[in-house]
Amino acid sequence: MIPRRIGELALWLRALRHAARRRLRDTDARRRYFEAIVDGAAARRFAAGDVHGAQRIAQQLLAGAAGGAPAAGEVTLVGAGPGDPELLTLKALRALQDADVILHDRLVPAAVLDMARRDAERICVGKAAGGIGSTQEQINALLIEHARLGKRVVRLKGGDPFIFGRGGEELEALSQARVSFSVIPGVTAAAGCAAYAGIPLTHRDYAHSVTFVAGHGDAAREPDWRTLANAGTTTVFYMGLSRVQHIAARLIEHGAAAALPAAVIGHGTLQNQRVVTGTLATISALAAQADLQSPALIVVGEVVSLHASLAWFNAAAPLEVSQSA
Amino acid sequence: MIPRRIGELALWLRALRHAARRRLRDTDARRRYFEAIVDGAAARRFAAGDVHGAQRIAQQLLAGAAGGAPAAGEVTLVGAGPGDPELLTLKALRALQDADVILHDRLVPAAVLDMARRDAERICVGKAAGGIGSTQEQINALLIEHARLGKRVVRLKGGDPFIFGRGGEELEALSQARVSFSVIPGVTAAAGCAAYAGIPLTHRDYAHSVTFVAGHGDAAREPDWRTLANAGTTTVFYMGLSRVQHIAARLIEHGAAAALPAAVIGHGTLQNQRVVTGTLATISALAAQADLQSPALIVVGEVVSLHASLAWFNAAAPLEVSQSA
Repeated sequence: MIPRRIGELALWLRALRHAARRRLRDTDARRRYFEAIVDGAAARRFAAGDVHGAQRIAQQLLAGAAGGAPAAGEVTLVGAGPGDPELLTLKALRALQDADVILHDRLVPAAVLDMARRDAERICVGKAAGGIGSTQEQINALLIEHARLGKRVVRLKGGDPFIFGRGGEELEALSQARVSFSVIPGVTAAAGCAAYAGIPLTHRDYAHSVTFVAGHGDAAREPDWRTLANAGTTTVFYMGLSRVQHIAARLIEHGAAAALPAAVIGHGTLQNQRVVTGTLATISALAAQADLQSPALIVVGEVVSLHASLAWFNAAAPLEVSQSA
Repeated sequence: MIPRRIGELALWLRALRHAARRRLRDTDARRRYFEAIVDGAAARRFAAGDVHGAQRIAQQLLAGAAGGAPAAGEVTLVGAGPGDPELLTLKALRALQDADVILHDRLVPAAVLDMARRDAERICVGKAAGGIGSTQEQINALLIEHARLGKRVVRLKGGDPFIFGRGGEELEALSQARVSFSVIPGVTAAAGCAAYAGIPLTHRDYAHSVTFVAGHGDAAREPDWRTLANAGTTTVFYMGLSRVQHIAARLIEHGAAAALPAAVIGHGTLQNQRVVTGTLATISALAAQADLQSPALIVVGEVVSLHASLAWFNAAAPLEVSQSA
């Protein structure tokens, strides 16, 4: 994509030269400043159409050169998508390739991390279910610390960082610490799993809305079951595998039909994706019988019935070389 | 990415050769078959990790070569993301570059269409609001027709194809016509707009669920306002700009606080994105005053209050070369 926008890039560099002449008296400092822009992330971002990002980096470099202080770092909160590494966005790929440090959750696939620069520092801050991991305070402190060292930090999360990703909480800490940040959305797990399972989340005939709910809330924070039991909508429970029985029972208790279709999707979008469908009455037993493993999503609603005709992924004859998947 | 997986590719080709020897007696036909695989989409998909897609193409090519019939076409339903062309996924980019024909909605950005091959046929089937466009039946017929001609067809939709994209309806028609298809999810408009507006859709302190609703439903299909008026959740109305007043009034009428924060995001994720925030009581007047234009999303919930501290996009000083954006 680099060869595009050469004319616009020239115009932009001319504007930067104007600003630099006012701030940097020293010719050598000006030359170094322009080299850093033309050879670095600023020009790459400009060429890719991210004028705002390019300008921000240029301003940081100029401030650093003028003050003699190191360039200010920044944190980019990045959604890694639902699992299939090909579901990363172009912008996320670019951020990974620009990053000096990557703080990632446990569920981010290795193939995604492999797309970063070889010399980038990778720090896993995720915690296994029930296991030990970094606390939110430790993660916030790490982000701030690396940014203050002048690093380009990527905070990489599965799915989308603003949908059950606690991205907001981390940005609040950065905002309070006056660290500059940006956000790159990702394909959220519900959209990825639904696409690969052949289950449209909305449909003219079945559902005019879709709700995403955290499946593993503490007991003190039970969702509003009466609302979720309403017909004519689709509900997706994130990471609720251990609570399938609880979820189905509460929905029926609050008025949902026992025959309402439901699906559990394990390892969605990955080569080992598995989809089990049934009804609220049967889904818990069927999922247990199939021995589905986390991570998994639960989809409840009439749209699940479309899986029978719309399944396409891993639906063909078994691959002759499945071991290379 | 092509140089990766050479070893696995060799193994796969050996397995294919085995299968081809049984089906294709003619040495020339076998050679042509292997050229089509190694030089074409099958090897590209394999190298990118899409073993399933590669195998499907190989099977189609083999069936075509064995039967003397042209290779069967296929339709890939692709989410183009919320607007910023950099929010396209790697997999969607690959599908665009493989496509012979692209049927796209009106809202898909030109910069995304530019990523397809130069010689790919582009057909706009979107309708302007209230204007004429292809009917759903016409779109279905076009998809089936091109696939039956042996083409690789991409059906490109804004956002995610399974969230208010009518993707399910189109796949049902393909399934009935026995046309093979696959789905590539995209960043849905709500996730894209929220990320670029600095509004987390879920948040430990404010919202444990998020609901997406079509904003411009016919009057006969009003959403369940009582459900949406519940506190502790975030609601996103898609494409509801003309109904902001109606939406705010109905929510208040069904019990939502008049002081509940609300935002309208126009041209989300694009350089001309604009965000207007207020409350259910004020948002309609504020949006009208700001003269926001479609496409726009409405976000309702306590999380909107975070925009004040988390806004980052276009939040810096005005660009010196904004005309080049």
